Amino acid sequence: MRKGVMRPGHVQIRVLDAEAALKHYRDLVGLIETDRDEQGRIYLKAWTEVDKFSLVLNPSDEPGMDFMGFKVVDEATLVQLEQDLLAWGCPVEHIPAGELRGCGRRIRFVAPSGHTFELYAEKEYTGKWGVTEVNPEAWPMDLKGMRAVRFDHCLMYGDELAATYDLFVNVLGFYLAEQVLDENGDRIAQFLSISTKAHDVAFIMHPEKGKFHHASFFLETWEDVLRAADLISMTDTSIDIGPTRHGLTHGKTIYFFDPSGNRNEVFCGGDYNYPDHKPVTWAAEQLGKAIFYHDRQLNERFLTVLT
Amino acid sequence: MRKGVMRPGHVQIRVLDAEAALKHYRDLVGLIETDRDEQGRIYLKAWTEVDKFSLVLNPSDEPGMDFMGFKVVDEATLVQLEQDLLAWGCPVEHIPAGELRGCGRRIRFVAPSGHTFELYAEKEYTGKWGVTEVNPEAWPMDLKGMRAVRFDHCLMYGDELAATYDLFVNVLGFYLAEQVLDENGDRIAQFLSISTKAHDVAFIMHPEKGKFHHASFFLETWEDVLRAADLISMTDTSIDIGPTRHGLTHGKTIYFFDPSGNRNEVFCGGDYNYPDHKPVTWAAEQLGKAIFYHDRQLNERFLTVLT
Amino acid sequence: MRKGVMRPGHVQIRVLDAEAALKHYRDLVGLIETDRDEQGRIYLKAWTEVDKFSLVLNPSDEPGMDFMGFKVVDEATLVQLEQDLLAWGCPVEHIPAGELRGCGRRIRFVAPSGHTFELYAEKEYTGKWGVTEVNPEAWPMDLKGMRAVRFDHCLMYGDELAATYDLFVNVLGFYLAEQVLDENGDRIAQFLSISTKAHDVAFIMHPEKGKFHHASFFLETWEDVLRAADLISMTDTSIDIGPTRHGLTHGKTIYFFDPSGNRNEVFCGGDYNYPDHKPVTWAAEQLGKAIFYHDRQLNERFLTVLT
Amino acid sequence: MRKGVMRPGHVQIRVLDAEAALKHYRDLVGLIETDRDEQGRIYLKAWTEVDKFSLVLNPSDEPGMDFMGFKVVDEATLVQLEQDLLAWGCPVEHIPAGELRGCGRRIRFVAPSGHTFELYAEKEYTGKWGVTEVNPEAWPMDLKGMRAVRFDHCLMYGDELAATYDLFVNVLGFYLAEQVLDENGDRIAQFLSISTKAHDVAFIMHPEKGKFHHASFFLETWEDVLRAADLISMTDTSIDIGPTRHGLTHGKTIYFFDPSGNRNEVFCGGDYNYPDHKPVTWAAEQLGKAIFYHDRQLNERFLTVLT
Repeated sequence: MRKGVMRPGHVQIRVLDAEAALKHYRDLVGLIETDRDEQGRIYLKAWTEVDKFSLVLNPSDEPGMDFMGFKVVDEATLVQLEQDLLAWGCPVEHIPAGELRGCGRRIRFVAPSGHTFELYAEKEYTGKWGVTEVNPEAWPMDLKGMRAVRFDHCLMYGDELAATYDLFVNVLGFYLAEQVLDENGDRIAQFLSISTKAHDVAFIMHPEKGKFHHASFFLETWEDVLRAADLISMTDTSIDIGPTRHGLTHGKTIYFFDPSGNRNEVFCGGDYNYPDHKPVTWAAEQLGKAIFYHDRQLNERFLTVLT
Repeated sequence: MRKGVMRPGHVQIRVLDAEAALKHYRDLVGLIETDRDEQGRIYLKAWTEVDKFSLVLNPSDEPGMDFMGFKVVDEATLVQLEQDLLAWGCPVEHIPAGELRGCGRRIRFVAPSGHTFELYAEKEYTGKWGVTEVNPEAWPMDLKGMRAVRFDHCLMYGDELAATYDLFVNVLGFYLAEQVLDENGDRIAQFLSISTKAHDVAFIMHPEKGKFHHASFFLETWEDVLRAADLISMTDTSIDIGPTRHGLTHGKTIYFFDPSGNRNEVFCGGDYNYPDHKPVTWAAEQLGKAIFYHDRQLNERFLTVLT
Repeated sequence: MRKGVMRPGHVQIRVLDAEAALKHYRDLVGLIETDRDEQGRIYLKAWTEVDKFSLVLNPSDEPGMDFMGFKVVDEATLVQLEQDLLAWGCPVEHIPAGELRGCGRRIRFVAPSGHTFELYAEKEYTGKWGVTEVNPEAWPMDLKGMRAVRFDHCLMYGDELAATYDLFVNVLGFYLAEQVLDENGDRIAQFLSISTKAHDVAFIMHPEKGKFHHASFFLETWEDVLRAADLISMTDTSIDIGPTRHGLTHGKTIYFFDPSGNRNEVFCGGDYNYPDHKPVTWAAEQLGKAIFYHDRQLNERFLTVLT
Repeated sequence: MRKGVMRPGHVQIRVLDAEAALKHYRDLVGLIETDRDEQGRIYLKAWTEVDKFSLVLNPSDEPGMDFMGFKVVDEATLVQLEQDLLAWGCPVEHIPAGELRGCGRRIRFVAPSGHTFELYAEKEYTGKWGVTEVNPEAWPMDLKGMRAVRFDHCLMYGDELAATYDLFVNVLGFYLAEQVLDENGDRIAQFLSISTKAHDVAFIMHPEKGKFHHASFFLETWEDVLRAADLISMTDTSIDIGPTRHGLTHGKTIYFFDPSGNRNEVFCGGDYNYPDHKPVTWAAEQLGKAIFYHDRQLNERFLTVLT
């Protein structure tokens, strides 16, 4: 949090059928619906999140990610980061307060990888869902489905990883937590953190700009990953892979698809990092194990199905 | 245990390289070496087993299962069961006491499926490994690898499932716990139990007689299945599939191969049954989900790689 | 199951307030209400149980256990066991079919310990709750509270343990799985099994006959024991002790009280046994560790609060 | 990390018998011995920690904590924080580089609560223990005992909580994650964080200055807490309380004592926080539940046994 960027705050995802998407994210993933707007967008959050929303479902003709937003510590930081982005050569767009209900003004920019990101300092504080502020119970009894704990990170596929790294590290204050290097020493995957998490955002080298691989939600335990897997099957939801462990981050994970074809991850565990940790490196020749630690080989679907 | 057959007592597996096999079953699966004999066979047991051995590794030119043995409650039962086998039309062979070190005389027979089974009433009682008989601790500190709890069951591929069912149920006192029926109502998989376990032995319809699919060892928890998966990867052991859950039995499982190519399973959980429970039935058209509950499709390897 | 006694089938518990008790066992423990009768009794079962009920709540002026019933394999066995009980010197009472709704005739007797037991061969088969018989999912989505898997066993306090042992072992076919011996070698606790479970019923030496210590329900995992503990706290339910492990059986456990003061246990794991296993023995001088493996000392409440 | 303080880096604990203490922290807690010095101090670290040590055992005549040290991001930060401490009115002591082997110069100060703290910017980078930097496995196979993941935090008992809060929050950049308020609104417990953890250091109001309650080590799962509990019993280690959950932080925990009487905690889970989260508040009248979420009452020992 060297530059005042605090955490992934929201992601807006395009969905083909809003009600089917709502059912998926609310009843299966276990998010809480918190609002809707006149554009037909549906707002959700995970129960431990204190701000009003972290996922926005945007009815659209094609799936994919519209943008991912990071919360910064205060307005002064937002002002500074806008200047820093411009100084770096990255144009910004101003989105007025209220364009997302309950969210303050946003500074929007497109990373060299082709993905749209936003920064914002204010969002309506609604508190954790289902527990009191004083003497809070351990968890709310009425959670549904996978009982996702929080929106955790996104993984993007795109090109210009080096420039994207420069922007995130030197302008926004992220640090490199994990990476995959090819035989030439070129970085083909970069996992960037602004916290002690193994990644707050990650990028995989891909010839096409701006592709979306997955939005990830945190679960508490490996039992919860099993429960997620069971629920995926019980609800005839399309699975990608899992339960398994990643080599990168060592998180315990399962991947599946929302009804529009956007990939979701739910996971638990994963290594922690501090900024003084050397980045963890995986060699591209071990990419299979880096991605799927147990199978030690990639499934084609994981590499090629993007939205 | 209607006819006095008590439990799966041992399995003898052919291995190409005795020391590599020992390393696999001792250091990775976590069994305890208890003896060797002049034929070069190596005897192992899991730590909770009170008898001297449950796995015998037999150095050989090709992998596979030599035989699986069941312990019966006493000598009188053994005498009766021999008569019952003969009366049913199943020839028996007498293996003298001591042919397996520490084991009493064995009655050997070949089931219609082509697999060799044995019954015996006596085996040297060595007690649980690593814990005392009085005031026993919860578990021994020195367990290795996957820390397998017990040899649990075997799964066989072969034909003549109906006759094999008749032999196991009507002569040996097993009951049908779970089954897969094809569209004609023919049983293509039968999971047979003499306890409250979902299977003590299981058979899958296959045109070739006497094929061995896997020997299975019990673990305590889903965390242990993850640990097993991690160890499989860390030791560069060949994995088949998992961690996952079965539809049949609902056990939580992972499959892998010993250095000779024999398939092993370690699993936890799974449904319990009593003899008055109706058998659980899966329709063949749902075979994918019946076998791999999460993926809901079979991998070719699981169906065709046999020893 | 040497004499055809199959499993603990039901327990009838006296409760002071039927609706409060129902709320406790249905919403907190997670049992399913299946019937009521004209006496005001409420019938419940755990979701994996195939028979109509396993717990009967009997509105009464004082708490405690009315009786515990075991299911036997068939009517012929019931006839034989009645003769065997009488031959042993234990009078029996005939309870007609239908006295408990959906249950066949019951043979009732009082053990030397002062507790009332029953045997029965028939109960309405309702199947597992919430899952289909064909292609069953891993678990039902609508379970409440602790999601108890099954009624597992009861623990009784009373005297004449030796005679009670003789009755259960030699007449009913139980075997001694675990025991506590005092310095004179006298058995002050006996855990009796008719299955591979560490106990289907247990007795602790106590000067007063016929006291009830707890009814126990099985959970699947240690995570579920934590969840149970959390729910106990969230619902302001009176806790006795836990989460912890027992030395005896090594089960992982938590104890609490229903609104009438009857003690409940929910637990997972625990050692398995076969009839040829030597009984596990704990010395009375290690009773603290035998009961509470982690604390290694007894809490007074656990020993003295009985119903 | 608003002021550049990064994480708890080490704690030096006084022990009566160095070898007994080493055995405790190495073989039971599962730390790695990394060095010794001419004063007889023994250096240990947990396996995921990248710096040379996090625990120093100092042979002494009485138990207790000598000091707790925080790592800051760089030397410039150290210089700035020294000025800020002095400006705040807190004298500092300079400890030269090398006084602790492998550690750079330390700025030492005594908080108003009476506890000694240190700041440092440099420590020998030894990397995670037992795994490679490139293509690292999920965990090392040779871990012992509880396999502690990292030194996590300390809890102190002392007075002047308000001044201590002011120092940690306004000078060092911590934020208040959780608190207990008495009926007058006075803070009697403060859990302070510089990360997303629920506490990096915590203080409980106590009339005597400078008392040490416990040093805490992180475990990965609730299964690991059970394993820790089992090991405590197997090794006849003095237990305080657990396994249980805290209301404060909701961590899952167990407490025990080292051979010198210093209290240790191992725990998993616990809430995460960001600086924009309102502090979680527990009312003093609910202190029992705040501390021990399941029992909902305090044990005297937890409150009064300090070193």
